[in-house]
Amino acid sequence: MQKRLLLTPGPTMVPPEVASAEAQPIIHHRAPEFDPLFMRIQEGLQYVFQTKNPVLLLTSSGSGAMECALTGVCSPGDKIICVEGGKFGERWREIGKAFGMNVISEAIEWGTAVTPQRIEELLSQNPDAKAVCVTHCETSTGVLTDIKAIAEVVAKTDALFLVDAVSSLGAEEIRTDEWNIDIVVTGSQKALMLPPGLAFVSVSKRAQERAAQSKTPAYYFSMKAYLKNLEKKTTPYTPAVSLILALDKALEMIRKEGMENIWARHAQLSKAIQAGCRAMGLTIFSQSPSHVVTPVKVPAGIDGGAIPKMLRDQYGVTITGGQEKLKGKIFRIATLGYATAFDATTGICALELALKKLGHKFQEGAGIAAALKVLAE
Amino acid sequence: MQKRLLLTPGPTMVPPEVASAEAQPIIHHRAPEFDPLFMRIQEGLQYVFQTKNPVLLLTSSGSGAMECALTGVCSPGDKIICVEGGKFGERWREIGKAFGMNVISEAIEWGTAVTPQRIEELLSQNPDAKAVCVTHCETSTGVLTDIKAIAEVVAKTDALFLVDAVSSLGAEEIRTDEWNIDIVVTGSQKALMLPPGLAFVSVSKRAQERAAQSKTPAYYFSMKAYLKNLEKKTTPYTPAVSLILALDKALEMIRKEGMENIWARHAQLSKAIQAGCRAMGLTIFSQSPSHVVTPVKVPAGIDGGAIPKMLRDQYGVTITGGQEKLKGKIFRIATLGYATAFDATTGICALELALKKLGHKFQEGAGIAAALKVLAE
Repeated sequence: MQKRLLLTPGPTMVPPEVASAEAQPIIHHRAPEFDPLFMRIQEGLQYVFQTKNPVLLLTSSGSGAMECALTGVCSPGDKIICVEGGKFGERWREIGKAFGMNVISEAIEWGTAVTPQRIEELLSQNPDAKAVCVTHCETSTGVLTDIKAIAEVVAKTDALFLVDAVSSLGAEEIRTDEWNIDIVVTGSQKALMLPPGLAFVSVSKRAQERAAQSKTPAYYFSMKAYLKNLEKKTTPYTPAVSLILALDKALEMIRKEGMENIWARHAQLSKAIQAGCRAMGLTIFSQSPSHVVTPVKVPAGIDGGAIPKMLRDQYGVTITGGQEKLKGKIFRIATLGYATAFDATTGICALELALKKLGHKFQEGAGIAAALKVLAE
Repeated sequence: MQKRLLLTPGPTMVPPEVASAEAQPIIHHRAPEFDPLFMRIQEGLQYVFQTKNPVLLLTSSGSGAMECALTGVCSPGDKIICVEGGKFGERWREIGKAFGMNVISEAIEWGTAVTPQRIEELLSQNPDAKAVCVTHCETSTGVLTDIKAIAEVVAKTDALFLVDAVSSLGAEEIRTDEWNIDIVVTGSQKALMLPPGLAFVSVSKRAQERAAQSKTPAYYFSMKAYLKNLEKKTTPYTPAVSLILALDKALEMIRKEGMENIWARHAQLSKAIQAGCRAMGLTIFSQSPSHVVTPVKVPAGIDGGAIPKMLRDQYGVTITGGQEKLKGKIFRIATLGYATAFDATTGICALELALKKLGHKFQEGAGIAAALKVLAE
C-alpha cells in the first residue's frame, strides 16, 4: 500500500473538506445565492492579499492572470522592465512581447535575485518605463526576491510595480497595500490549497487609473471588464463555480489559521527541509531561498532524474526535478499549502531511503534528526 | 424540504459520480500518470465532436475558447463575417473588434436564424472574407442555426467556418468532420455535464494551416501553443486538473450512452417541454427552436420576472428569464446535459403550479398530460 504525498510547488494537495466543497451541487452564477458567496470570497481574498483594493477572480491558470495584469495596465509600445531569473520570470517578457510592448529584459543568473539597487539603476536609465515586473518566488530556482524593498524604489517613479506571486502568495509574507505593490498575481493551486483553475489579480488605485487608459487588445482577460463586473458582484464570463465553492471553504480555513501563522508554518517547514538536506551532505541551490520550494543540488555521481523517480515510484512521494537548464542538476521539495510538520518529515525520511539506495554517502538518520530539531523549536 | 433542480442552459447539473471524480486527490499534470489520462480525454473529446482532428483543452469559459478560436486563425485587418441574433452572437463581433479585425456584422432579428442563402450572399459580396462565425444554438433566444447547410456554402470559399457550439455540442447533432466545420467551440458546463471551467476547440487541417499564419497577439489563448503542446500530450499552462478528472468520468458516461442516443434524449425532453407549455396556452418564442433550451413567451398580464422567481423560491426549480431586450418577455427552460424524463416532468409540474398561482388561465393538468404523451412515444 502507498499513500500519495505531493511535495510539489503546485498543484499542491487539496484538504478533504475543500475537495468535498468542490463536489457540492452547482449553483447558478446569476442566481441570488451567488451574490453573498462572491462578496465573502472577495473579502477573503482581500485578507489573503492584505489589500483593500479589488481582487479580480479569473478562470484560468496563473499565466492567464499575468496576461490580464500586464495587458490591463500597459499598451503596445509601452516600455516595461522585466526581470527574469528562471523559467517563470520569462513569462512577463513573453507576454509583453506578444502584445507589442517595448520590453527591457533584465536577465539575471538563475539562482540569484535582483536587488533594489539594480532596479533603481534600471529605472534611472529608463525614466519612461511604465512598469516593473518581477517574480516574487521563482519556482524553477526557489529564489525569493525582496519585493518590499523594490516596491519602495518603484513607488518613487511613475512606473507601476507588478509582482508574479503565483507560487508565493499565502506562503511568504506579502502586504500588498502597506508595501505599495500595484499588482499582485496568484493562482489557486499553490498556498491557497485548491486545484488549479482559478487565478487572482489585485489592482491598486493607481493601476485602476492606468487600466482605464490601456489600449492593448483584450477580451477574456480585459481588466476593464473584470473591474466593471466586480462592482456588480460578478465576473464578465461564467466562472468555475465548483472551484469557487472550494475557494470559499479554503478561505475559511485560512482565516481560521491566520496569515501570520500560515507564513510562520511555511517558514518552519521549509527550514526543516533545508536542515534535513544539509545534514545529508546536500547543498541548497538558491542563494536567496524561499519558503515556497527548496531547490537541492543533485550530489555528484547520482543521476538527477533518479531521485524524483524513486521517491515517486517506490515511496509515493512526488517531488519535482529541475526545469530547462537546471534539468538533472537539482531537485525541488515543497511544503506548500496544505502541508504539516509530518509531511516535511515524511519527505526527508523518503529522501533518506532513496539517497541510500542510490549510493549517496551520509550518516543515516542525520537528515531526519536535523529536520526534527528545527520542528521542535 | 426542497430538492434543487437546475433547468438552466448552463451551468447544468453535475452527476454525483462526476462530482466525486472531481473531488479525487490532485495528480500532478507533469507526472507520467497524466499522459494516459490526457490521451483518453483527447479521444473522448474527438468522439463528442465527431472529429479526427485535434481538440484543444483550455482552462477558461466558453468565451475564452471563442477568443482562442478567432484570434488563432485570423489576423488584425482580416475581414470576418459575424452573425448575431442574440446576446451570445454578439461575442464573435466583440472579439473580432477587440483584436482589430474588419467585422462584417450581420445582425438578424432576435428569435430568427440566418439562412444558408444569406451566408452565400454575404460571401459573394465579401469574397475576401477570411472567416464566417455563427452561433449554433443562441442560448438567449433558443434559436438553432442550420450549420450543416451553412458549412456546405462556406466550404466552397476560402473562408473558414467557426461555430460557437458552447451550449449545443452534445445536445444537438454536430458532425464536425463530415459537415466540414473548421472550428467548433464548446464549454464544459452544458451538455458535457461538468462544472464550468474547461472549454474546448476543434481545429480542422485547414484551420491548423491558417493558425500558423495568424498575426493576432496572443499568449494564454495562443492556438499555436496549444497545438504544439497537444503533440506532447499536454497543455502550455497548468490546466484545471480536478475538472479534467471529472471530464474523464463524464466522457465515460457519454461514450456508454452514445452520441445518437444523447441527441435523441435531448430532442425528446425538449419536445416534451414544448408540448407541455403549448398545452398550457403558452407560445414558444423561437421560430427555429433548439433542443438545448426552450424559450417561452410570458403570458399577457403576468410579470415576467415572477415566473422564474416563484419556481426557484417556492419549488426549488431554477429556470432562467429573458436576457437584455427579452428581459421580462420570455422565460427559458432547459433539459440540458444530465437530465431525464422526470426532470422534464418536474419542470412542467412546477410550472403548472406556479402559473396557476400567478393567475394564468389554462386547463389544469393539460401541460403535464401533453408532456407525458411526448415522453411515452
